[in-house]
Amino acid sequence: MNLLKYIREVPDFPKPGILFKDITTLLKDPAALDAAIRQLADPYRNAGVSLVAGIESRGFILGAAVARDLGAGFVPIRKSGKLPSKTATASYVLEYGTDNIEIHTDAVAHGQRVLLLDDLLATGGTMEAAVRLVKGLGGQIHGISFLIELTALNGRSRLKGEAVTALISY
Amino acid sequence: MNLLKYIREVPDFPKPGILFKDITTLLKDPAALDAAIRQLADPYRNAGVSLVAGIESRGFILGAAVARDLGAGFVPIRKSGKLPSKTATASYVLEYGTDNIEIHTDAVAHGQRVLLLDDLLATGGTMEAAVRLVKGLGGQIHGISFLIELTALNGRSRLKGEAVTALISY
Repeated sequence: MNLLKYIREVPDFPKPGILFKDITTLLKDPAALDAAIRQLADPYRNAGVSLVAGIESRGFILGAAVARDLGAGFVPIRKSGKLPSKTATASYVLEYGTDNIEIHTDAVAHGQRVLLLDDLLATGGTMEAAVRLVKGLGGQIHGISFLIELTALNGRSRLKGEAVTALISY
Repeated sequence: MNLLKYIREVPDFPKPGILFKDITTLLKDPAALDAAIRQLADPYRNAGVSLVAGIESRGFILGAAVARDLGAGFVPIRKSGKLPSKTATASYVLEYGTDNIEIHTDAVAHGQRVLLLDDLLATGGTMEAAVRLVKGLGGQIHGISFLIELTALNGRSRLKGEAVTALISY
């Protein structure tokens, strides 16, 4: 299935000049949703992945469904102050300033194989911080998957040494 | 499977005196995650549900997985300003002040059967606003499902006339 045609492009969101890739038109189509989850899971079947970690909040949508498909558990990586128990924190650079993401320190056991997942690879800053969080807990990054990659922003350069896949490239 | 034992109780989060129900300990367990998704979907198999709508952001985690299990699409209901295309808005009352949630106006077609899903039923205010959003687009609410219900807060009184189920009750 060609998933690209299910993505809606919305001009000037979240600010003028940005052509936003809207995945809600894909998510609401049962066949496209099913295909996206299956295609995200396919490279990792029988690969011993025990956890899928998804980044708040669009990474939550597909993350738990991919985890279930792989027989894995799901770990949320969240914005600051949202996780209730003891957390580890990593910061990443925004256009102006920095922001933080967090993971529960007991979310990943030493040596567990983790698939990291988000909807969109742009500059890669958030995902690079997520890689640090998982490795900091002793987890092995088995792969990093995105629904969409904006290749012009070269986010893969921030994720060197990791196996990165994306279902849709612009 | 008894899902209750996978829930962690975290005292004084997000503020003193609150005993927070932490679902991350359930989500990271592959068997519990699988059982939760299956049990949320079970009452709606072969019921003609064409969309599952989940509320940001913990409702996203289980929502898309339940949608896939039912052969349905997934619709995100989000906080203000997050959805890129044309939206409808509903407000709900917080302890101090009000907040808004939004849905894309093209997310639900007239007459579509919708299952609404969130992780936790507390006072029911957010879900009641979500019901208004879906009905405002002409959708039929076929059911409302929660992973957890805090029965002492009587959230069901806000959702009268709807079929409400919860997997875990406190």
